Amino acid sequence: MLAYTYIDDGKFELTQKPVPKLCDPRDAVVKVTLASICTSDLHIKRGAVPRAVKGITVGHELVGVVEEAGPAVHNVRPGDRVCINVETYCGECWFCKRGYVNNCTDKNGGWVLGCRIDGGQAEYVRVPFADTNLVKIPESVSDERALFTGDILATGYWSVKISEAEEGDVVLVIGAGPVGLCAAMCARLKNPSRVIICEKNGWRRGFAARMLPWAECVCPEDMPEITAKLARGGADRVLECGGNEDTFEMAWRYARPNAVVVVAAMYERPQILPLPDMYGKNLTIKFGGVDGCDCAEILRLISEGRLDASPLITHTFALKDIAKAYALFESGKDGVLKVAVRP
Amino acid sequence: MLAYTYIDDGKFELTQKPVPKLCDPRDAVVKVTLASICTSDLHIKRGAVPRAVKGITVGHELVGVVEEAGPAVHNVRPGDRVCINVETYCGECWFCKRGYVNNCTDKNGGWVLGCRIDGGQAEYVRVPFADTNLVKIPESVSDERALFTGDILATGYWSVKISEAEEGDVVLVIGAGPVGLCAAMCARLKNPSRVIICEKNGWRRGFAARMLPWAECVCPEDMPEITAKLARGGADRVLECGGNEDTFEMAWRYARPNAVVVVAAMYERPQILPLPDMYGKNLTIKFGGVDGCDCAEILRLISEGRLDASPLITHTFALKDIAKAYALFESGKDGVLKVAVRP
Amino acid sequence: MLAYTYIDDGKFELTQKPVPKLCDPRDAVVKVTLASICTSDLHIKRGAVPRAVKGITVGHELVGVVEEAGPAVHNVRPGDRVCINVETYCGECWFCKRGYVNNCTDKNGGWVLGCRIDGGQAEYVRVPFADTNLVKIPESVSDERALFTGDILATGYWSVKISEAEEGDVVLVIGAGPVGLCAAMCARLKNPSRVIICEKNGWRRGFAARMLPWAECVCPEDMPEITAKLARGGADRVLECGGNEDTFEMAWRYARPNAVVVVAAMYERPQILPLPDMYGKNLTIKFGGVDGCDCAEILRLISEGRLDASPLITHTFALKDIAKAYALFESGKDGVLKVAVRP
Amino acid sequence: MLAYTYIDDGKFELTQKPVPKLCDPRDAVVKVTLASICTSDLHIKRGAVPRAVKGITVGHELVGVVEEAGPAVHNVRPGDRVCINVETYCGECWFCKRGYVNNCTDKNGGWVLGCRIDGGQAEYVRVPFADTNLVKIPESVSDERALFTGDILATGYWSVKISEAEEGDVVLVIGAGPVGLCAAMCARLKNPSRVIICEKNGWRRGFAARMLPWAECVCPEDMPEITAKLARGGADRVLECGGNEDTFEMAWRYARPNAVVVVAAMYERPQILPLPDMYGKNLTIKFGGVDGCDCAEILRLISEGRLDASPLITHTFALKDIAKAYALFESGKDGVLKVAVRP
Repeated sequence: MLAYTYIDDGKFELTQKPVPKLCDPRDAVVKVTLASICTSDLHIKRGAVPRAVKGITVGHELVGVVEEAGPAVHNVRPGDRVCINVETYCGECWFCKRGYVNNCTDKNGGWVLGCRIDGGQAEYVRVPFADTNLVKIPESVSDERALFTGDILATGYWSVKISEAEEGDVVLVIGAGPVGLCAAMCARLKNPSRVIICEKNGWRRGFAARMLPWAECVCPEDMPEITAKLARGGADRVLECGGNEDTFEMAWRYARPNAVVVVAAMYERPQILPLPDMYGKNLTIKFGGVDGCDCAEILRLISEGRLDASPLITHTFALKDIAKAYALFESGKDGVLKVAVRP
Repeated sequence: MLAYTYIDDGKFELTQKPVPKLCDPRDAVVKVTLASICTSDLHIKRGAVPRAVKGITVGHELVGVVEEAGPAVHNVRPGDRVCINVETYCGECWFCKRGYVNNCTDKNGGWVLGCRIDGGQAEYVRVPFADTNLVKIPESVSDERALFTGDILATGYWSVKISEAEEGDVVLVIGAGPVGLCAAMCARLKNPSRVIICEKNGWRRGFAARMLPWAECVCPEDMPEITAKLARGGADRVLECGGNEDTFEMAWRYARPNAVVVVAAMYERPQILPLPDMYGKNLTIKFGGVDGCDCAEILRLISEGRLDASPLITHTFALKDIAKAYALFESGKDGVLKVAVRP
Repeated sequence: MLAYTYIDDGKFELTQKPVPKLCDPRDAVVKVTLASICTSDLHIKRGAVPRAVKGITVGHELVGVVEEAGPAVHNVRPGDRVCINVETYCGECWFCKRGYVNNCTDKNGGWVLGCRIDGGQAEYVRVPFADTNLVKIPESVSDERALFTGDILATGYWSVKISEAEEGDVVLVIGAGPVGLCAAMCARLKNPSRVIICEKNGWRRGFAARMLPWAECVCPEDMPEITAKLARGGADRVLECGGNEDTFEMAWRYARPNAVVVVAAMYERPQILPLPDMYGKNLTIKFGGVDGCDCAEILRLISEGRLDASPLITHTFALKDIAKAYALFESGKDGVLKVAVRP
Repeated sequence: MLAYTYIDDGKFELTQKPVPKLCDPRDAVVKVTLASICTSDLHIKRGAVPRAVKGITVGHELVGVVEEAGPAVHNVRPGDRVCINVETYCGECWFCKRGYVNNCTDKNGGWVLGCRIDGGQAEYVRVPFADTNLVKIPESVSDERALFTGDILATGYWSVKISEAEEGDVVLVIGAGPVGLCAAMCARLKNPSRVIICEKNGWRRGFAARMLPWAECVCPEDMPEITAKLARGGADRVLECGGNEDTFEMAWRYARPNAVVVVAAMYERPQILPLPDMYGKNLTIKFGGVDGCDCAEILRLISEGRLDASPLITHTFALKDIAKAYALFESGKDGVLKVAVRP
């Protein structure tokens, strides 16, 4: 089968590999029907992910159809359309039992798919712990709508969950990239009084305004004035999805005292925490990554029409043209946000 | 009356002032029976607290007897022995109603006592919002035992509360200064499996070990080995009471994934947050200051013998000798931890 | 002034009384602009409230304008339009500090207004603890929209709060009387997947369907079939606002295992709890009355257009005709739900 | 092998059965080393459990050694000493994922062991979902100490957990039978200010006082006076482990307003809920059964010496004499509390 492979730093290639087989009674093999490219894939390509294993197939955002399920798999059967959690988890360790599946202590827990074992930019993929990591897609939900469930939607959903956002809150989302837009959509489920999306890139701001017409899409320069007018001196919840120095500063600066600030973004550099300036603000800062324990909830919300991330797919390529898809995604040109790849 | 006064940066003097009077129907005037010196007083002396008003009496850790109460005061009466919250609060604003009294938005809310209005290193002190900020001392509790209720015990108690510590947790307290020792005492109330106090100063470590024999008092060099043996890869709760660069790093490094790290210390400098190193650890970091909403609870615990911070008083001076008390406290010599001052 | 007075069991009369005066520095006197009749008033009339004191003015649902405020009142001033909490609370006792204002231990805490001290079916009313019990009405909110804030809206809001309802839940409201409709409106703020209102009276069911078109208004006979189709075997949250034997049974029967059932209704008779039948269902049953600690939030929601209980006012009378208003309300005829009285 | 079998209502007999085999890849077969008799076994014998299947081996409180584990079992291996959850659960359904394992929707979820499938009063037993339902016993813990982990200790632990008991609370445990004593032990882990055990039987009260010397063991007649002296008008948490009409009434009567009352007992008859008398008390009543999701925690507490239920074993019999063991347990004579059976 075709598989997009991490040959070396800077070099991914479409190669031929055998169709994967079950290795453990809890495994399943899934025939990929739609995959996507994630910024993390580019991190691997740049050699910025030391844990990544050369030779593996990349890709961890995907949906497909169960081809084969191990004898210990009970929740899905061959033929089931499924979403896949990017961060696989065993469901039984101390962390998994408490919902912190991102910190699963099993060797196949956490980000292994497309990083340490073969991933999903291929025709087939083997998934460990199929009972916990595959979730059936309701018939009414298309592959495009389901595609982001296990990765950026899960990230956005988890960030809102740990933000403890409640009805009536002012929620500030920093960054209108794919994760920021997913976070904003999930925040709206809590019925906040306002969702403010702060993004410096004008094109992204415009995209956000069209995709999420109920949100207030603003640029960083507007934030001081907006904040000054807020009843409690800042946003009640901040979801930082930008990942830069300036967005990190905005995250604590525009939060009200005792707010919850969730850092969902991945940073490439350390940041300065100006504790004397922040003293007395009494913030709670929560760092959260992809946490796939709520994928079934997310799919339910998609099927009810409450969440729809499919507009993020700005371009689609065939698997054989995946190198072109990467080139476009890396360039950031042509209004690209997310690229889908169809095997 | 005698009052220790902030004359100018670097200069505090014992001066004569008139006994304070009620300014608001909710005020009370308290005759001070025992006061203490806090590191924050030294900050003012060094000119490091721009908000501090020259000419005011300093001091905010004290107990006394109500001398006079305004017509709108209902909870205390002249003759009542009382503790005083260092951070006064109105009890009615949005933040107060949610228990975040540290962020009270009233002009007399927050740290005003001994900072913006006359404080308690004097014979008498006027206290705003007496109904919320004075708490009656049970008869069985001595002044010495009650002295730290409204400041360092409140800080320690609050830090444990927001740490969400539970029975069976491993709690790591960083720093064996007065706040760290109070935090450790309060942590023990939650019945953790271990309380580890990490302190680099050998004398302080020894003091901690004698005062809190149930705690494990260790030095920073021991932490890697201790942490490596912990079942979940680190402490479940970390209470950072040190306030230095190295203690800040220890706080996140020795926490397990998904732990709660409470920063109770006040920092004089910004700190580096090495986000790439911390990625995937998914910590919750909570910044918390003095929060006096639980003083009645703390007094109850003192009266039941569950909390006793009086051993922290290593020295006592008469008010007329307060300059000597400051000199000793600033020197850090002679095994001084906290100095009490008796008018 | 005119005041509707509890003369004796079965006998309320419009009498002349002096305008009330301040008794305590924390009191305020309010000029009533709109009041309402509550089922509890009828309970007093029937002699079913032994705590009620003969001779007092009845009425506890009202809005007005502050006429005079005591010297210890800081949050409202003469001329402010205000809502009044039916259950007055001191804000300082153990229960108040934890938000359980309904169980305030002050002698003026709980239901005293129009029960033990003169209430609001009059031209003026004295309100204890004005700072906590009066809430300013935003300019944009009419008296009609604000009228139910401190009583039936507060009851509905509290019942939803303690139900721990979350986004996506199935919420079952039993009873489409005024409290049930308020509870349903408040439940919707949590963004549930379904709000089902179960009511046996066809007229009320129709009224509910017109007033809250987003709700599913059903009759008790439909509940077994609806419940059988629910994914988790019953409603996630049940708000019992009926107060009868059959509604009590429905409350536990149509809840899913581990659901929260809130009993907001007042019962005149003991009920049977069939523990053997309920065994293994592991319900949480919470009993909740009017809890006025969230009136500011409720007014904010009204001003944002998220809550509007004014359609419940089906009839309005002048104060001089209040006897007619009672007669109509007691009769239940002419499509009456709530009657407003204008002094 | 020997197996104590439910022949018919009123008739249990020791019979010969083949050693059980694995039926599912997730099963394990356990060699029983110590078992116990539970009141629920007597319920079956009396014919009071319609779900119970004639012909099955009874018994669901036991410890043993893994004899054989299915290919999908990862957490235990042959030779491991293990505790067994009385209520088996799949770990993957909606309820299990939220910790409500008592309401597992799998056909092998809930109370099946010794009720619908062969149980543990035998030489061997097959256990479904071995990964979730078997927990390894630390080497330092004897069979006697581990014996009650999966049943009455799990019940007591869960009741305390859902009671939301906190440091400083007054906890009232009603009933000093085995479940009540386990609940009291677990309550103490929360560091309450008082644990009061109310029991009318003088012998049981004495046993409780000897086994738990830190508890206050009182008779029902003392409760009005004790309650009258409590600062908040009643116990903060009530754990009802009695299961009778009078204990049910005590449960709500001696609770303070807004208390949490946990009903852990199993009732044979419906109870009266006197809602008019309870009005305004605003209680939360939680019904909770055995919930085995915390067995690993419980074993940790046992190994740390914080929990020890082994004194409840007042008598031990060999499996061949199990009929005598039942006779003694049913008689309640000779100071019997729990009877252990050794195959």
